[in-house]
Amino acid sequence: MVEAGRRFSARAGALRSSKVRELLKWIGRDVISLGGGVPDPASFPMEEIKRIILDVLEERGAAALQYAPTEGLDELRGEIARFMSRRGVRAREENVLVTSGSQEALELIARVFIDPGDPVLSDNPTYLGAIQAFAVYGPRMVGVPMDEAGLRVDAMEAALKRLGGEGSRAKLAYLIPTCQNPTGRTMSVERRRAVLELAEEHDFLVVEDDPYSYFYLDGVEPPSLKSMDGSGRVIYVSTVSKILAPGLRLGWVVADEEIVEKLAIAKQGVTLQSPTLSMYVLLEALKRGLVDRQLPKLKEIYRVRRDAMLEALETYMPEGVRWTRPSGGMFVWLEAPERVDMDALLPLALTKYKVAYVPGSAFHVDGGGQNTARLSFSYPPLDAMREGVARLAKLIAEHAAARAAPAGG
Amino acid sequence: MVEAGRRFSARAGALRSSKVRELLKWIGRDVISLGGGVPDPASFPMEEIKRIILDVLEERGAAALQYAPTEGLDELRGEIARFMSRRGVRAREENVLVTSGSQEALELIARVFIDPGDPVLSDNPTYLGAIQAFAVYGPRMVGVPMDEAGLRVDAMEAALKRLGGEGSRAKLAYLIPTCQNPTGRTMSVERRRAVLELAEEHDFLVVEDDPYSYFYLDGVEPPSLKSMDGSGRVIYVSTVSKILAPGLRLGWVVADEEIVEKLAIAKQGVTLQSPTLSMYVLLEALKRGLVDRQLPKLKEIYRVRRDAMLEALETYMPEGVRWTRPSGGMFVWLEAPERVDMDALLPLALTKYKVAYVPGSAFHVDGGGQNTARLSFSYPPLDAMREGVARLAKLIAEHAAARAAPAGG
Repeated sequence: MVEAGRRFSARAGALRSSKVRELLKWIGRDVISLGGGVPDPASFPMEEIKRIILDVLEERGAAALQYAPTEGLDELRGEIARFMSRRGVRAREENVLVTSGSQEALELIARVFIDPGDPVLSDNPTYLGAIQAFAVYGPRMVGVPMDEAGLRVDAMEAALKRLGGEGSRAKLAYLIPTCQNPTGRTMSVERRRAVLELAEEHDFLVVEDDPYSYFYLDGVEPPSLKSMDGSGRVIYVSTVSKILAPGLRLGWVVADEEIVEKLAIAKQGVTLQSPTLSMYVLLEALKRGLVDRQLPKLKEIYRVRRDAMLEALETYMPEGVRWTRPSGGMFVWLEAPERVDMDALLPLALTKYKVAYVPGSAFHVDGGGQNTARLSFSYPPLDAMREGVARLAKLIAEHAAARAAPAGG
Repeated sequence: MVEAGRRFSARAGALRSSKVRELLKWIGRDVISLGGGVPDPASFPMEEIKRIILDVLEERGAAALQYAPTEGLDELRGEIARFMSRRGVRAREENVLVTSGSQEALELIARVFIDPGDPVLSDNPTYLGAIQAFAVYGPRMVGVPMDEAGLRVDAMEAALKRLGGEGSRAKLAYLIPTCQNPTGRTMSVERRRAVLELAEEHDFLVVEDDPYSYFYLDGVEPPSLKSMDGSGRVIYVSTVSKILAPGLRLGWVVADEEIVEKLAIAKQGVTLQSPTLSMYVLLEALKRGLVDRQLPKLKEIYRVRRDAMLEALETYMPEGVRWTRPSGGMFVWLEAPERVDMDALLPLALTKYKVAYVPGSAFHVDGGGQNTARLSFSYPPLDAMREGVARLAKLIAEHAAARAAPAGG
């Protein structure tokens, strides 16, 4: 038989499977998953979506199953522009590109902007899917540390100065300012302003990934970077996956028209277009106010879930373990004592303790984070989630103790 | 304002928009489009698809709108494997990858196999979308000429020898053996066998793109290369777009498990997964025999269309114009007299003659073909199609005459 492996491209050799995707395979067995950011299916408005699909097939007929423009249906682009305008972002139809999930948006942005070696700044830790999408194009990832108020602007400035000292400059910064994945942290308004000032001063683009601000839990969500963008340097990315349903596979980009046009040309070679039926469903969901009506419901669902997880962590976690108090999103970021290796413990967690999490190292752009993990509160039933946290606490406690007191016999 | 353009990557600078996609914009105005390969909407089984969607939402509930595995739903992969087995291809669930249209399949194959400079053989002319998908990864495209029996094996052998003489070797061959896009030609069984022998001898992989064999019009379709593949060197690609509905955005790959696994890892960074609702629709369409029942209907629809176009060409085209007699698919390949530049004439065709086609040069991997064009018989109403051919004939006749007898005053 042919050995295909020796024919793989150099870039294919570097492709690593996402630990999150691998973990999805464990859902539904006797393992409790605190892994993937899978939405609570109770949040899907099934009856209304069913009604919409029927109406779409009735009213649009064959068009709902036919080819559609690469950029997305014109009507949908306009509706997304209005949706964004209500959130303070000036956008017209021409500023919107509909994508096959936000993953494709990140792929297209990387394809269109990143040359090998280009410095790309990001929160550190940051979203695994972005690291994957970018890695193919060979950027030099420059991680910027965070604190409770999000990305540390002083550290970003220092990184920019270091780059400048090398005669280099940042091509773009990839940021998740609100309810960040994986930490759940939200960047303060002051820091947002400061980041945009740095972008002006050092002349880089900002990719704002914003899946979670729509159901921000701590009052009024802070303004998006895109809404504060005076010069067209912010490329805004979001997704339908968390506010309606991930199975539709739709996301969108809002950016200057020149950028949208180039991304659309790139999309021709990747997926040609996003799924037509899904686009019509989203169009109607926006027009009928279904998405707007979803948001308060999502807040309620995820507030209960977040609070339950924080309470369980408080109850079960041993001394020396720290975690974030997310302002929304789907994740809590956990730091075990330094000596606990969450990477090495994962197989044991899955097979003996029957709990899944994502090791934090996967989210680091520059190594490190072996004692960290991302815990999702979005999916398991509340009782199972509490039990999952208890199992994880036991794992960490036993391992921290074992490492603290080496076995003497 | 920021000028994004000067920040585009080197590869983005080389991205060109597909002429076919640009032409789609003209459909529905007073221009008759013989451009894109858009299926006749009358071929969509609307009522049965509506029934299936309702059942899926009823029976699968939230799962139909939830995340799904990157490789595709397990059940669907199994069903596609059975569908392929009925066509002589030995395949199991693990050999199938579900993609977001066959465009994504081509993108993933290019990503996983093509290093810059790798020689890639193909039919010449060949499918535009493949040229686009591959170009990003910098292959050296080596076009192999065709005749009425498809790819010329002698020319392929000569190309392989030339490569060998340079100390180089082909990484893969991209072929559309049945009802080729853009020529409509079908490769004979003898040539298929000979190509696979060359692949063994020169040790390259074969990507078989097969959207059209399912409704081959001239009797029994020839066996796919994949069904003749003894050593696992054929990577088979097909799509739902032509046999059910393009708006579902689904395609699939059948290949050795090792290849499918690597393509799936690559897919994580591109679209994460294909649309879940679409996958359930396809699963049911296969299980209920809807796809099998579609095929004879498609044959009837496209036979009438092909014959109508061939008749119109016979009726209207001036002396010196030649065209293929396709055994299926959606396209006729037209060669105008050498002096007629179909690239240069396109704006005039659209604005004055009100007819759209795709200039043949777009399908050539090595330049040339300025006097050729691809005509689609798949979409316009028959009367409009005839009228479109008449308009095109007039354009060519007038231009050929004008060039033959330069204006004297």
